[in-house]
Amino acid sequence: MARQLSGNPVGNAVIGQSGGPTAVINQSLVGLIESLRGRQEIQRIYGMKHGVSGLVNDDLLELGSLHDGILSTIAATPSAALGTTRDKPDDEYCARIFEACRKNKIHYFFYIGGNDSSDTLRIVGQMAGEQDYALRCFHIPKTIDNDLPQSDHTPGYPSAARFVIQAFMGDNLDNRALPGIKVNVVMGRHAGWLTAASLLARKFPGDGPHLIYLPEVPFDLNRFVVDVEEVYRKHGRCLIAAAEGIQTGDGTPVLQAAEEHLDHDAHGNVQLSGTGALGDLLTHTIKHHLGDSVRVRADTFGYLQRSFCGVVSEVDQQEARDCGRFAAKIAVQGDPTGSIAIRRVNDRPYEVSIERIDLSEVAAQTRTMSPELISGHCDVSDDFFMYLKPLVGKLPVIGRLY
Amino acid sequence: MARQLSGNPVGNAVIGQSGGPTAVINQSLVGLIESLRGRQEIQRIYGMKHGVSGLVNDDLLELGSLHDGILSTIAATPSAALGTTRDKPDDEYCARIFEACRKNKIHYFFYIGGNDSSDTLRIVGQMAGEQDYALRCFHIPKTIDNDLPQSDHTPGYPSAARFVIQAFMGDNLDNRALPGIKVNVVMGRHAGWLTAASLLARKFPGDGPHLIYLPEVPFDLNRFVVDVEEVYRKHGRCLIAAAEGIQTGDGTPVLQAAEEHLDHDAHGNVQLSGTGALGDLLTHTIKHHLGDSVRVRADTFGYLQRSFCGVVSEVDQQEARDCGRFAAKIAVQGDPTGSIAIRRVNDRPYEVSIERIDLSEVAAQTRTMSPELISGHCDVSDDFFMYLKPLVGKLPVIGRLY
Repeated sequence: MARQLSGNPVGNAVIGQSGGPTAVINQSLVGLIESLRGRQEIQRIYGMKHGVSGLVNDDLLELGSLHDGILSTIAATPSAALGTTRDKPDDEYCARIFEACRKNKIHYFFYIGGNDSSDTLRIVGQMAGEQDYALRCFHIPKTIDNDLPQSDHTPGYPSAARFVIQAFMGDNLDNRALPGIKVNVVMGRHAGWLTAASLLARKFPGDGPHLIYLPEVPFDLNRFVVDVEEVYRKHGRCLIAAAEGIQTGDGTPVLQAAEEHLDHDAHGNVQLSGTGALGDLLTHTIKHHLGDSVRVRADTFGYLQRSFCGVVSEVDQQEARDCGRFAAKIAVQGDPTGSIAIRRVNDRPYEVSIERIDLSEVAAQTRTMSPELISGHCDVSDDFFMYLKPLVGKLPVIGRLY
Repeated sequence: MARQLSGNPVGNAVIGQSGGPTAVINQSLVGLIESLRGRQEIQRIYGMKHGVSGLVNDDLLELGSLHDGILSTIAATPSAALGTTRDKPDDEYCARIFEACRKNKIHYFFYIGGNDSSDTLRIVGQMAGEQDYALRCFHIPKTIDNDLPQSDHTPGYPSAARFVIQAFMGDNLDNRALPGIKVNVVMGRHAGWLTAASLLARKFPGDGPHLIYLPEVPFDLNRFVVDVEEVYRKHGRCLIAAAEGIQTGDGTPVLQAAEEHLDHDAHGNVQLSGTGALGDLLTHTIKHHLGDSVRVRADTFGYLQRSFCGVVSEVDQQEARDCGRFAAKIAVQGDPTGSIAIRRVNDRPYEVSIERIDLSEVAAQTRTMSPELISGHCDVSDDFFMYLKPLVGKLPVIGRLY
């Protein structure tokens, strides 16, 4: 049995980062480090390189003695400073994780990630409980997809949304200056939160994106070309936001429904990011319908959305930092496990409360956009605008002559 | 014969924007407006909507009475506020342009664009001369491609370069956090200036881009996969910058050499931008060589590079503004036609001189990267680093833990 201090185990802490990086995942890391340092219960603070794979392979960094200057630079740096992993541990892998904790006298385990990470913590925490080993397991949420349940929003999403908005603001001006049809493919396999953010790029009447397609709304290629043609006839141009995960009525990804030879990722899913295939499919469909004389182009925003250097939401930075600090705080308050939720307390002025929730409330669930945030089959509602506005910060000011 | 003032015709001025938009093309527009206003030779200041097509179709805006507040917002807005065009006027079209000038009492014609625009001005200026109509024709350079001759660099390029650098800085961190092979396709049909800019994303040892492929260096797919494999074996990851215009030894675009069914743009060129085809070709080639177990992805930066809202070089903004002002100034100094060149006077501290050059020095030429700026077949030299550094401004500070 570990030595105790006010009911808390005394020992080492470990921090890991998992899943796709975000622009603010290092804020949570630094929030944890600065709040764990100086606590009497915590002896050493380790960082696991590339998530749990670093833990089981004994690939650990010492984080407790880093200078404040380095910490503040790391906090402001996008992507995962510890490295991250796509590993989804099964029971056997989780047993190895637990053994690594025991071996390294780790009694505080913090994992910054999506719902897979919270599930890993849940299993490892259960193993520790069964073996009467005091292991506090806390999850700090991150994902640009904004699809974790229980939270108003997830750290990482506001910064990615800001990137998408600034990209659409510029591309709308570009499409207006040199008219044509433009498709922009935005990340989001099951949830349309990031694609919907493009709404905030509209400022003047007639501004795009004129059409917004989300995974939540069944997509039909024939209806799509009719939508595009209608906008094009009206405005002489058309700017389209399409989620990479748009799917047909039966839940098949549009790309899969249209093509036979597709790349699959490590989990056997169709590869949606890091390829221009969906954009090319949509532009070819439009050209086939409207003819070759119309200028049709596609861009796939890809990985720039999650790690672009220099575009970040200040609200997101602060909240990600606060989530890290809060996790460090509640780890010594009794509950053996938990995750963090951001709850919105007030809209104007914008105010949130950071709260503890059970791990089981996060694991293996996906939060898609609710119907009141969606408008028709190709737009987003005013409610969504009100929801997103306070998260992204002050946007660049743009003007127009006519 | 028009009324004269100190040897200058008295009448109206017109300003147009042509070709692909940039982040600072409106700085040149505003520089022109603010310097033309209040000059006794200038009566009205018109803007042509969508370049010369607006002039011949009588689609003009009055720009002389715009408030300073609107002008400064417009100056800071990316893309072309007047709208732009891809029209390349032939002699008959140029005759219509000249007639539109005469009809609208235009004696000062300013066209902000690439080498096609300077060629239009040259032809129209010749027609005016032959008909003894006093028409001052001045070209203000812009292009993110940086491929106009006679200048140290071209307004628009530094801001696009800054976008590319920030994108690679973030993507290098992303690729390091979640290792794999990543291809980023950068704009540039004939010149590698923008792709080469990715060099400035390297900060720490081992940072990417590890391989940089330019149109200036013959590209070989077999050598490419060997390069990639070597970097991947060494670093466990590989970040690649490839110009969209990379070509084989005989000058055939790589995409064309590899594929039969390709889209062509309005000029019959193979469509390189606004499609993910080259990125997909390169990733498929790598996978075919290294096997499916390696994580390989591609992003094509596309139009975000030229009109992204909120990423701009301050040096570029200032110089683009100064070019507009300078053009307005020299239009009343005697020469009937001319273009503007930025000459570098000093490296440290960085200092430039803005000078008049002949239109014939710009028209229909492409400036590619000279051999001393290139290193081997897949890298860029230190000379290029020294060349670009002062143009892009202070970059975001990033840190790493190991």
